[in-house]
Formats: sequence, C-alpha cells, structure tokens
Amino acid sequence: MVTIGIDVGGTNLVAGVVDAQGRLLAKACAKTPRVTTPQPIIDVCVTLARRACHMAGVAESDVGAIGFGVPGSVDRASGGVVRCCNIPFVDVPLRQVVQAQWNVPVFVENDANAAALGEATVGSARGYRHVLLVTLGTGVGGGILIDGKIYGGHNHLGAELGHTVIVHNGRRCGCGRYGCWEAYASASALTRDTRAAMRRHRDSKLWQSAQSLERVNARTAFDAMRQGDAVATALVERYVDWLACGLTNIVNVLQPEVVCIGGGVSNEGDALLLPLAERVRQGDYNKTDDRVDIRKAALGNDAGVIGAALGCHS
Amino acid sequence: MVTIGIDVGGTNLVAGVVDAQGRLLAKACAKTPRVTTPQPIIDVCVTLARRACHMAGVAESDVGAIGFGVPGSVDRASGGVVRCCNIPFVDVPLRQVVQAQWNVPVFVENDANAAALGEATVGSARGYRHVLLVTLGTGVGGGILIDGKIYGGHNHLGAELGHTVIVHNGRRCGCGRYGCWEAYASASALTRDTRAAMRRHRDSKLWQSAQSLERVNARTAFDAMRQGDAVATALVERYVDWLACGLTNIVNVLQPEVVCIGGGVSNEGDALLLPLAERVRQGDYNKTDDRVDIRKAALGNDAGVIGAALGCHS
Repeated sequence: MVTIGIDVGGTNLVAGVVDAQGRLLAKACAKTPRVTTPQPIIDVCVTLARRACHMAGVAESDVGAIGFGVPGSVDRASGGVVRCCNIPFVDVPLRQVVQAQWNVPVFVENDANAAALGEATVGSARGYRHVLLVTLGTGVGGGILIDGKIYGGHNHLGAELGHTVIVHNGRRCGCGRYGCWEAYASASALTRDTRAAMRRHRDSKLWQSAQSLERVNARTAFDAMRQGDAVATALVERYVDWLACGLTNIVNVLQPEVVCIGGGVSNEGDALLLPLAERVRQGDYNKTDDRVDIRKAALGNDAGVIGAALGCHS
Repeated sequence: MVTIGIDVGGTNLVAGVVDAQGRLLAKACAKTPRVTTPQPIIDVCVTLARRACHMAGVAESDVGAIGFGVPGSVDRASGGVVRCCNIPFVDVPLRQVVQAQWNVPVFVENDANAAALGEATVGSARGYRHVLLVTLGTGVGGGILIDGKIYGGHNHLGAELGHTVIVHNGRRCGCGRYGCWEAYASASALTRDTRAAMRRHRDSKLWQSAQSLERVNARTAFDAMRQGDAVATALVERYVDWLACGLTNIVNVLQPEVVCIGGGVSNEGDALLLPLAERVRQGDYNKTDDRVDIRKAALGNDAGVIGAALGCHS
C-alpha cells in the first residue's frame, strides 16, 4: 500500500507516490493553471496523481490515501481549504471534490506543515520531535512540530511565522500588516532589495551577476558577494540580520530542537547558515548549551510531496 | 492532602496552601530579602510555607507537595533553577535544597507558566486547552498552555514572549537584544515613557495624575487619559499599539483559544482590553470567526501561587 502526496503551489503542481517509509517512488509535475476557480487545478492534481502511479508501476487500487499540501489555511477535520493567497482556493471542500473522482481517504494540510513533517521523518530533522521549518520563497512559510506532531494552534490556522512584525510600522506586507518578517526575509524581498541596490549602484558587480534587472533573483546578491562586491556584501548582511531577527523571535517562544531552512535561498548553504546561526545564538534568550540547531532542509522541493503523503498517517 | 504553592518574585515572596480543586486556603507574604545568594530567600520561602499551613489549620504532614514558580528559566526534570534576572538564582538545585528542610516532592516551574496553569484551571481561562498568559509588569512575562499542558519548548526554556523583537534595532532590552516587546509593552516601559512625556509637556494633566516624577507608575497615563488629557491619550494609544503588535505576532504563530492579560496594567480593564482586542483582530492572519478571545486574568497576584501548587499535579 502506498500513499499519494500532492504539493499544490502557486507556480507548480506536483504529485508523488510515497511508500510507508517515506520514500518517493515517482512524481509527476505540471504548471499550475492560471484560473479563477479551483476545479481545473484539482483536475490537474488528480491527473498527475494517476500519472505518478503509472510511472511507479503502482495500481490505483494500491493507493491507500491521498494527502494534499496547500499554501494556506486548512480545516483538517473537514479536509477543506479555508484561505490561500496565491491560488483561488477559498472555502473549497477539497476532500469531497477529490473523493468524487477517487474514493480513498483524503487529507489536507498546510504545505509548510507538511514539509516540516517530511523533514522530521526522512529529511534533515529526522529523529527530532520539536522541529521548526522555515521556507524562504515568495513568502516566509512556517511549519511547527511539537512532540512529533504538526502544531497549528487550536484552530489549526497558526504557524504563520512570516506574519510576525519585526519592524514596527515598516514595509507593507501582503497580509495587511506593516513590517512583517516576510516583507524582509523572503526570497522575493531579497530580490526586490537587490534591484533597488542595483539602481543606486550602477558600478556594483550585482550587474554582472544578474545582467539585467529582469533577471535578478535571490541568488544575485550572494553571487556578487562571492565576487567581493561591497554593495552585495552589505545587502546579504542586512538580509541575514532581518532573517535572524524573526527567527530568534520564534526560537525564544518555541525553543525547538532544530530549525530546517528551506526554499531557494537555503541553497546558499553555509554562506547563509553560518552567519544566521551566529546571530540567532547571540539573540537566543537561552544561554545554556542545549541550543537550537539550524540546518538546511534536506528534501528540497520534494519535502511538500513527501510530507503531504506522510500526513495521511499522522 | 493539600499542596503548597510558592511564588518567588523580585519584590515579594508568597506561599499559599492550595487544595485539590485549586482553592487558596491561606497565604503568607514577605518582602524578598535583598541578598546575593539564594539560601536566605529559600529560607524565607520555607518559613512562609509553614506559616501558611498554620493559618490554614493544616498539619505539615498533610502537605503532599511543594511547587515553586520562579521568574526565570528552570530545569523541570531536576527541579533546579537555570537562570533568573531579578533574584540571585543561577544554577540553584532548588528541589534538593528545599527537600533538605522539608522532605516532600518539590516541583519547580517558571512563574508565568505556573500562572497560565492557574488561570486555565480556576481563573479566566477555565475549561480552555490552548491558553496564552501575558503579564505586564517589570517585564513582559509569558506562559503557554498547549492542549492543557505547559509548553516551554523541548528544553523548557521557551515562552520568552517578552524577548521577541517588534522594533528592529529599537530600544535596548535587558536581555541584550534591541527592540524587544518587553522594552515597549511592560509596565516599566509605560512608566518610563510617561516620565519622558511629562518632561516634554509641563502643562499635561499627567502632572496632576502623578504629582511628581517619582510617583509615576503605569496607571498615571490611563488616569490622565480619563481626565481628557491629549498627551496621555496619545501615550496610551502608542502603548496599546506596541502591546498589540507583539501579541498579534504570538497569536499568528500559536493561535491560542484565549489570551489572559495579567500584571498591574491589566487592572485598567476595558480601557486597555477593548482597543487591544480590536488591534489584534486587525492584524490576526486568521480572518475566520474562530478567533482568539482576549480577557483579563482573573486570579491577580494569586495566579502564581495557585499555579505553582497546581503544577505539582501536572
């Protein structure tokens, strides 16, 4: 018996076949349709799930359950989606809609929570019970495991780590608040800040690194820093400072054993993780040796699929 | 069989006799000795505990356990105190020291965590399983209950809500960080801000409210606001804004069912709680009807004693 995990993203949809040990046997991907209703997206998800079964050589009758990871608030009890920012899933009874096409148990989880479960089961937080996952992408996503279980508050609408203010009356965030961590520490924020720095510094190596403003991404500043550019170095230092500020806040509240950093920016590895860990250490209220460990998430883009599948067992 | 709860504060020590239903049968108080070693403080605690037993008409042999609530980090397993800010308890094996004088089970808990347990058992959060307690005093203290149990992270050193930055590079905090919630939202911060406003505004009603700079406290601004003073009104609005900023951050992470506000400032009642709740509602990422309830802590100064006693059963 296998489980299907489906990672529903604003850009890509991925369905994977996962065995009981959390191994990804096969996966199928497609671009997320640009639509205003949920049904076309759900249809693609089901098609991808069937394709992944075929690729893995697994009969559809061997699928024990389907788990979804969606970028928003979910109602775990009913298997519905309450609210998403980047896809048109608002008050969608996802379980019912899917079961009309494929009658197996269907579970719905927040994508970052699912990824945290994936990292704690077969990724870089394997064996840990108190885990924080932070994804640096379009936004700053968060997943919390407490004693091995996903924690999202009594209504399962919490773990919105990105929407914690670190700069009072600061940058406007998509959520409506001003100064959210997400507005400073997401990959999108770093990309925007890099473009702004390029406009101010025409002689910076940022221009060689990116070639044009349109091609700037979260890697641009790190690349130019490695070439010794002072503007890029300052940009990265400021970014790490903001990232550490919000992360230290969460550490002082939750004191997890391990923090997994995921999303595209985490590919910078030690250039990001070493100064980040040092700054969190400085601000950590806990000065004992029993301190949080900060590491790169291991599963990369597969964390969501694997975690969504594993969520069916939890 | 009864339990003794001892609330160890920087200013006062209180010991109380608590029955199995969480009722406070008697309590005895004393000023905290100004000393540099823990033993004199522990001796006073034990003396107060014996006095409270006598007042309650309870034989010492009827005491089943003693619970301490201390303003700092504790090691629950060993019953020791790791670190405190306002009393000289650093690496103190409190359980062993107390048991040398009174051989019953001894439990040691953070004071705000203990108070949260008290509020959830017999106070204003009775019947709730996911509770946040925030105390506005010298600092901003925090207690977290998740599914009815005290949560302090894997090492039990978390729930340091006051040490979450809301103003990046802001006011220096006693913990070493800059811009902590505590540096803006504690009663001490409001008192300092009130003094600063009085120096700038010699004609403000704050002067009538307090009479002199030395007599200013966290009530001064609220009193002058009630007299229609514009400076005081602005001061209170700014205070509530900061308080709401940090509280909304925690709500977006933990989504508790109820937040109990304790400490001296909570005595302002609706003048504080109504605008606070409105601002938290605005910033809450959760826009469903299943929203956190913000209320005044009910047990006042007894929460610590009752919670410390109840902690012996949990």
